[in-house]
This record gives sequence, C-alpha cells and structure tokens, in this order.
Amino acid sequence: MPTTKRFPAAHLLNVNERFFLIDCGEGTQIQLRRFKLGFAKINRVFISHIHGDHVFGLFGLFSSFQLLGRKNELHIHGPGEIRELVKFYEKYFGTEQSYRITVHPLGYTRKMLIFEDERLEVFSFPLQHRVPTCGFLFTEKYGELNLKKQAIDKYKPGIENIHLIKKGGDLVLNDGTVIPNSSLTLPSWKRRSYAYCSDSIYEPELSEILQKVDLLYHEATFAHGDEELAKKTMHSTTSQAAQIALASGAGKLLMGHFSARYKTHENLETEARSVFPESYAVNDGDVFEVKRVRNEITS
Amino acid sequence: MPTTKRFPAAHLLNVNERFFLIDCGEGTQIQLRRFKLGFAKINRVFISHIHGDHVFGLFGLFSSFQLLGRKNELHIHGPGEIRELVKFYEKYFGTEQSYRITVHPLGYTRKMLIFEDERLEVFSFPLQHRVPTCGFLFTEKYGELNLKKQAIDKYKPGIENIHLIKKGGDLVLNDGTVIPNSSLTLPSWKRRSYAYCSDSIYEPELSEILQKVDLLYHEATFAHGDEELAKKTMHSTTSQAAQIALASGAGKLLMGHFSARYKTHENLETEARSVFPESYAVNDGDVFEVKRVRNEITS
Repeated sequence: MPTTKRFPAAHLLNVNERFFLIDCGEGTQIQLRRFKLGFAKINRVFISHIHGDHVFGLFGLFSSFQLLGRKNELHIHGPGEIRELVKFYEKYFGTEQSYRITVHPLGYTRKMLIFEDERLEVFSFPLQHRVPTCGFLFTEKYGELNLKKQAIDKYKPGIENIHLIKKGGDLVLNDGTVIPNSSLTLPSWKRRSYAYCSDSIYEPELSEILQKVDLLYHEATFAHGDEELAKKTMHSTTSQAAQIALASGAGKLLMGHFSARYKTHENLETEARSVFPESYAVNDGDVFEVKRVRNEITS
Repeated sequence: MPTTKRFPAAHLLNVNERFFLIDCGEGTQIQLRRFKLGFAKINRVFISHIHGDHVFGLFGLFSSFQLLGRKNELHIHGPGEIRELVKFYEKYFGTEQSYRITVHPLGYTRKMLIFEDERLEVFSFPLQHRVPTCGFLFTEKYGELNLKKQAIDKYKPGIENIHLIKKGGDLVLNDGTVIPNSSLTLPSWKRRSYAYCSDSIYEPELSEILQKVDLLYHEATFAHGDEELAKKTMHSTTSQAAQIALASGAGKLLMGHFSARYKTHENLETEARSVFPESYAVNDGDVFEVKRVRNEITS
C-alpha cells in the first residue's frame, strides 16, 4: 500500500537521454512531474506483473499523454493482461486518442531478449511471485573504440578506414606508414547494466542472470526475521535481497517495496548492509547514476 | 491534468462522522492518507462522470480496501460505465476480494433523489459536459426540535410524549398542568447543504436547484476572459462559477479543477470575488466547515 511518503512502484531509467519507465503504480505521472522527470520522452514501458501497485498508474499516464497531444507510439512490454487494460482504457477513456499503444506480451519460461536498439539490450527473466512476474535486465551493448579527435583530424582516414579503426585496426597511410590503433583511439566505454527485480520470493538462482550488474533493484518487502511472512506472500526480506546482490557481484543494491508496517527504513538498510555494504533503502525521487568509465587498455 | 500541487478531483464530505467520497481521481487514496482522513469509513462514493481525472483513483481505492480486509459493502453512485470499471477491476485485481461493490447507475434527465437515510438526502442533477455528467446535492433532513435535557429530566415524559414534544407539542402533566413546548425544547438545527457541480459548461438554470446551498463547489477550469475556451471544452470560468453562486444565494463558493495553464490561483479567486465575495480557490487538503446553527424561534 502507498504511504504518505511512498507511492507504489515505478522506476525511470535514463540511458543516454532515452527514458524507459519500469512499472507504473498509481500516481506515477504525478511523481514524474514532481521530480521534473521527462514525461513525453517515455516511449517504452516495462510492466513486471499485473498487480495494482505496479500498473494502476497506466490509466493516468495514457490520459496525460493524450492531453499533451502525443503522437509517438507507446510500447508496453508486460503480461498479456495489459492488452485488456489498454482495451478497457481505449473503450472508455481513449475516444480522442492521438497515439497508438502497442503491447508486447512477456514470456515466463526463461531469460529472453525483449528489446534492442543500436546501444541497448533489454532482457526479461521470470521471477517467482503469486502471479506471473518478470524482472528486467538492461545492458549496454559492447561499445566500439572511441576515436581520438586530434589524430583523426590529422590523418583524415576515410569512412571505411574509420570503421576498421573503431574495431581495433591500424591505419596505413598512402606512403605506407602504419599508424598504430593506440595512437588513433581511446578504449571503449564499459558496458553498464541495471536490473529490476520486482516482487519475488527469495530465489538464489537469480544471481546467475544478474552477474556483475552495476545497479540492482531488488524488492525487500520485509525485514530480516520476517522470512515466514515473506515466504507466505512470495516476497523477500532485506537480507535475502542483499544475498542476491552479494552472489551477483552487483555494484549497488537498491531496495524498495517496503511493507507499510515499517515506519522507518534505516533498520532495513542496516540489515542489508551487514550482508552487502552497498545497499540502499530508496526513497521516492532518489537518483542513482552508473558513471561511464572506459575499459582498461588491454594491449 | 494533475500538477505538482494539485491532484485530480476528489472531495470528502463528512456528515456527522459519516464519510462520502465524491469523485475519485488518480491518487485519491494517497491524498486521503496524507491528510489523515478516515479511509475505511467511506461506504458510499459518488462519481460525477466517466472522465479519467474523476475515476482513475477507484482502482487504488478498491485495492487498498481489500488489503485492509474491508468487509462492508461499498456503494457507488455513478454512470453505468462504472459497472464495467468494477467488472474489469474484479476480473484482474479482485481475486481475493473481501467485500462487495455495488454500483447504482445515475439518470440524467432531471434532479433525482438517489440516496437517503434518517438524516440526509442526496440528489443528483444533470450537468452539461462532453459526456453524461451529474452534480450532487447533499441536504440534511428537516430536524426535529431538540429536547432541553434539564426539563426532560424534571418532567420525565414517556416515549410517546417525547415524540410529540419533538414535533412541537406541549406536555400535559397528570394534574392537568400544561408545560409549553418552548420550556421543553430548543429550536431544531438548521438544515445544512453542500453541492458539488463537477465539470460543466456555464448553465445559469443550475441556480434553481442550488437555492440557498450553504457550501457550493463549482468547477472553474478557466479564467475570466477565456469564455470561448470554456465553451469549447464545456467547462466554466471563475466569473461564471461566481454567477451561479450569486444567483443561488450560496453561502460560500469553492472553486477548483483549474487548468494547468494557470500557475497561481490568486487571480482566479480575485476574479470570482468581484462577482461573489465568498469565493475560494481551493487547495488540496483544504477543509471547509458548515457550522451547525439553530433555527430562529419563530413563535
């Protein structure tokens, strides 16, 4: 349940100024405005499962897009039932709709590539909850070497040579001189990754999918000690979320979806940190950045 | 559209600790919690029309009632389409539902009594908007005279006599002495009333229905001067809302539903006050009370 401080689930992921919305609980559009987050820039939404606290904000989001005169297609990756939700919305509220909503139903059998573009791959993977549920893994694609502007300006290699250089090739000038790749390029950027593990019972095998993820969100509905409650409702505890982060070799663990029974969250953070020091009990509006760093020079 | 300061439409009416919710935009349950307003005490909801900014909060409200283990039936007076909304909710989100939701469809032809109990009558009346829309008028029933405790303790009239006294009768003692009613009673409470005029084009005839209403909410989506926009979208301006209040002889005018184009609302209030001084541009969480006062002694 929402509290006076916490709205239901929603993450906004910014990948080089492309915005992906992940889950959309009631009031998501209101929070997006409050935190001055790009609204119209969202073209793709990922819904983990069809529980109200993860989807009820879709209605208001659809409606505000319409009021803003949206033209771009909106893509939703989520449970097949989202199609029914969209149909219901369009029947009663979408009569003057200016844009198309397309739903891409999730599968629940294994890790699957569900979206990619030139820079990014998005995978869904099954979680164990009371209804079919998926987590999502966002991974940057392997980057090419970055050109040194000064060297390129100097040697002016053609387009074809530039492609070869970016892949690691040296440049041979007309007079036969070989300019080594290291003089022409900087190492590529490290691939960054983010994973969203929505409502789920403690599932140690998840760490195989989450190997070395930079930023890991894992729900932590219950405090350490409330394992029985967690199991019964198919949720996780702080310590369990931290175990997943530890076993995955994650960079940082973000925890949320806390039961309204816990009035403060310092303890929840402390519990997780005793297992995995880089654990954070997140608040609405918190921003976490994965810095872009270059790969080491391997040669 | 909601703004960072204003959530979509919802009023909570407290009539002697019975709570009525009127419209239920996205985030209503969140605001109810924030303003510490009785949540579980709501047994009856009135929905003016089937636009998203007036109904999208129903999903979260239903869901939280369920999580709180609600048992009491929830009654909704609203457009027939609300039945479809409830069906949709129950199919996908209400699998473990602990309480019944009953929808009472509105009619749109005339003022109609849609609910009454021992103290209160609620009327719906048609408004002119882009979809079938109703306003609601809540009126306390005519009250009986209030007994003077001291006199009743002294003369100890039986139950039957008490009924007669409450209706204005004198008390005749066994020895034939007549105790005049004025010694036994205080005047009854004045009937208080509240009206909610949801989205509507300027409709001067409304004032006939709203005669002498104590507290009048009337939408004022647009500023004075934007009459053309108001007409086109079937909304009202501040001055038009104030005209309705003036012609109705209302006690106070509450205005809301302001277009997001107006960044501050002082001007809107000023505009209305030039027509009807007791006009208020309401903010989320504002509370207005109609004080209980006794009728004048007429004899």
